[in-house]
Amino acid sequence: MQPVNLGVVGLGNVGSGTLDILAENADQIALKLGFPLRVAAVCSRHVSSKKIPAALGSPMQTTNWREVVDHPDIHIVVELIGGTTIAREVIEAAVARGKSVVTANKELLAQCGAELWDQAIASRINLAMEASVAGGIPIHAVLREGISGDRITTLYGILNGTCNYILTEIEQRGADFAQVLAEAQAAGYAEADPSADVDGLDARSKLAILSALAFGERIVPSDIYTEGIRRIAPIDFGYAHMLRHTIRLVCTARQTPEGLLLSVRPSLIPQSTILASVRGAYNAVWVRGKYGADTFYYGRGAGAHPTGVAVVSDLMRVAREIRSGSPERVSPFAHARLGEYCPIPITLNRAAYYLRFRVKDRPGIIAQLAAALAAENISIEAVLQLPDENAENLPFVITVERSSEASIRAALARMQKLDFFIEPPLAMPMETSL
Amino acid sequence: MQPVNLGVVGLGNVGSGTLDILAENADQIALKLGFPLRVAAVCSRHVSSKKIPAALGSPMQTTNWREVVDHPDIHIVVELIGGTTIAREVIEAAVARGKSVVTANKELLAQCGAELWDQAIASRINLAMEASVAGGIPIHAVLREGISGDRITTLYGILNGTCNYILTEIEQRGADFAQVLAEAQAAGYAEADPSADVDGLDARSKLAILSALAFGERIVPSDIYTEGIRRIAPIDFGYAHMLRHTIRLVCTARQTPEGLLLSVRPSLIPQSTILASVRGAYNAVWVRGKYGADTFYYGRGAGAHPTGVAVVSDLMRVAREIRSGSPERVSPFAHARLGEYCPIPITLNRAAYYLRFRVKDRPGIIAQLAAALAAENISIEAVLQLPDENAENLPFVITVERSSEASIRAALARMQKLDFFIEPPLAMPMETSL
Repeated sequence: MQPVNLGVVGLGNVGSGTLDILAENADQIALKLGFPLRVAAVCSRHVSSKKIPAALGSPMQTTNWREVVDHPDIHIVVELIGGTTIAREVIEAAVARGKSVVTANKELLAQCGAELWDQAIASRINLAMEASVAGGIPIHAVLREGISGDRITTLYGILNGTCNYILTEIEQRGADFAQVLAEAQAAGYAEADPSADVDGLDARSKLAILSALAFGERIVPSDIYTEGIRRIAPIDFGYAHMLRHTIRLVCTARQTPEGLLLSVRPSLIPQSTILASVRGAYNAVWVRGKYGADTFYYGRGAGAHPTGVAVVSDLMRVAREIRSGSPERVSPFAHARLGEYCPIPITLNRAAYYLRFRVKDRPGIIAQLAAALAAENISIEAVLQLPDENAENLPFVITVERSSEASIRAALARMQKLDFFIEPPLAMPMETSL
Repeated sequence: MQPVNLGVVGLGNVGSGTLDILAENADQIALKLGFPLRVAAVCSRHVSSKKIPAALGSPMQTTNWREVVDHPDIHIVVELIGGTTIAREVIEAAVARGKSVVTANKELLAQCGAELWDQAIASRINLAMEASVAGGIPIHAVLREGISGDRITTLYGILNGTCNYILTEIEQRGADFAQVLAEAQAAGYAEADPSADVDGLDARSKLAILSALAFGERIVPSDIYTEGIRRIAPIDFGYAHMLRHTIRLVCTARQTPEGLLLSVRPSLIPQSTILASVRGAYNAVWVRGKYGADTFYYGRGAGAHPTGVAVVSDLMRVAREIRSGSPERVSPFAHARLGEYCPIPITLNRAAYYLRFRVKDRPGIIAQLAAALAAENISIEAVLQLPDENAENLPFVITVERSSEASIRAALARMQKLDFFIEPPLAMPMETSL
């Protein structure tokens, strides 16, 4: 049977992984589909230096992406160059020519996924994006198809493998953040400029896409309160363990009576929850639905081959649709404007909180902190101090009962004039409902 | 836009849950699809005593399933009566009339899924079966779409919630199997005749379906070596914990150099693996792919609403296809007959094993058991005995290094003539690769 023809733009890590799978797994793909997928063209700025698997034959090779998009035989354009400028041009040009698109571009989709989907619907083509979030976890297929009949109330994610690796290393080895980051950079697990990862921006883009899919609203990164992991110290794991918790960079989208709370921030989670067993460079997504209760999905967050599986699986689905005729589409970024999922400010969050202080010790500190908390009607749950700490730089923890983020912030503001702090207090929510 | 019309046959637990979701979540379903789903007919032996949600209007109510299947307005027939006789008639009649079918029937699909799919393909309709395995986990969507581009090498499952609940209770409370089973029966968590659950037959049907989907081969229940959990005692968890393992009823489909090994049996799994955090009446599936590495899926195994979500999600997918025109189909039970996934006998399994003995103690027992193992070239890893046991009924454990199931069985046969056993030895594989 006639193949469906692909044009692959971008031959970096994910592009090469995708070509490997298309070459090595071609027989099984053709058997599953009933027809083959054929790589008709590849494009890269350095295409002449790229190794194209021999089994793919001789696809057209070009450094000009327009030749791929304009190629009359090509049915699906695969955008794997990343970034938001040229990638957007590639996708918009392909859509304008009535070609379906498969992309792994989380940043672009988080920024303007809704607009791209509107164009895709107008052109009656498909825009597939499984690889854009948590590469190895088929969470798009789950939200789009597997549990589409449910009404989702909460989504938790561990969506940045670098942060999860760093936090796990701090936890297991007691090493400092700076030291673990330096090692991860030396080993190539973290970028030279680590900000996108450790400041939570990468995770924020992914949460924007997942929460749009889960709630059918347009969610943009600026809707999401974001805090990174730079301040997490080994001592925080010591205290978290005393509380039978651990610490992860948790992405949360939770429907509350007031609206949709969105955040990316380091949080304490109970050791007994399955989310706590996500260690190292893995990703996970936990979904709570009104009908389906809790489901949990776990896998590699990145990597040439895991992300390549997502791209190839999307290609198979899109190719099947090209053969069967395109369905009517509804944008996954705006399918259910029932008005029930309106983003609200993080100050409306309500949770138990972990407050960690570092002080130069002297009598009366607890009394002054307790007074600041009491002034905001916050109830103290426990005061914890690990033994053998240095009185000149004494870390200790106060946990407080369920309070609003607004009152926690007000209490922290009251504490600002106190002169015994070595560094500003660190506040983290405790996700007890997991 | 015109609705897609449904006929629901069977209004038990899952049928009622499905109607609840179709009624309560109708707005969101219509927004996601672009058109509504309408329940046009319901059928049950006791239809007059069933409560139909008012929001569904007045569907035709009948005790005769043929009226549903023959109804000219109905596009999709939902088979939720279970069993393998009438259910098969319902499905075959619907398919013969060119109607798509959504079913939750694991037993029927395990038995004759390949035949039903052949009929569905010939009639150019869809046969959707997400609810047939691990109701709350969208594992069909994952295997069919999410990771369809991967080449799966191993699938592990915890697929029977009743067994997992019983094992977890034995582990946490130290109660006997018989006592926990009786309590579960009294509470309605286990059937009066518990055999399908505790002897592994239910899990076997589910593994037959999942491994067919994962490997594209026709796998039938009789291909699968099956052992239940009746012999697992609190003491086994004591020894498993000494070894930093726990015990679960593990469903395994693993590609080996010789072929595909299929089993449902109690197994030791490391406490550190995420599979070990599956407690109580939950299900989980772990998939290892050549390219995508490990992914893991977790959720409710059953229940009216979790399984209802699977049915409704299937209905949405099938309805979308009815609107867009059916694609060419390839049977998921036989999409990839590459000859590489041939089932092989369990005697070819290779693993470390846990051997638990109960003996009337006397000198020389270890020597005799060790001689039987040595005669089959099996190396002992450890001999474990918890303190304070009764010498008249002394349980102890020998763990052995990686061996073939055939040699383990031969060694156990050699032990048969020994006269100090209170009960036959219990052998379980240790899944160390998880």
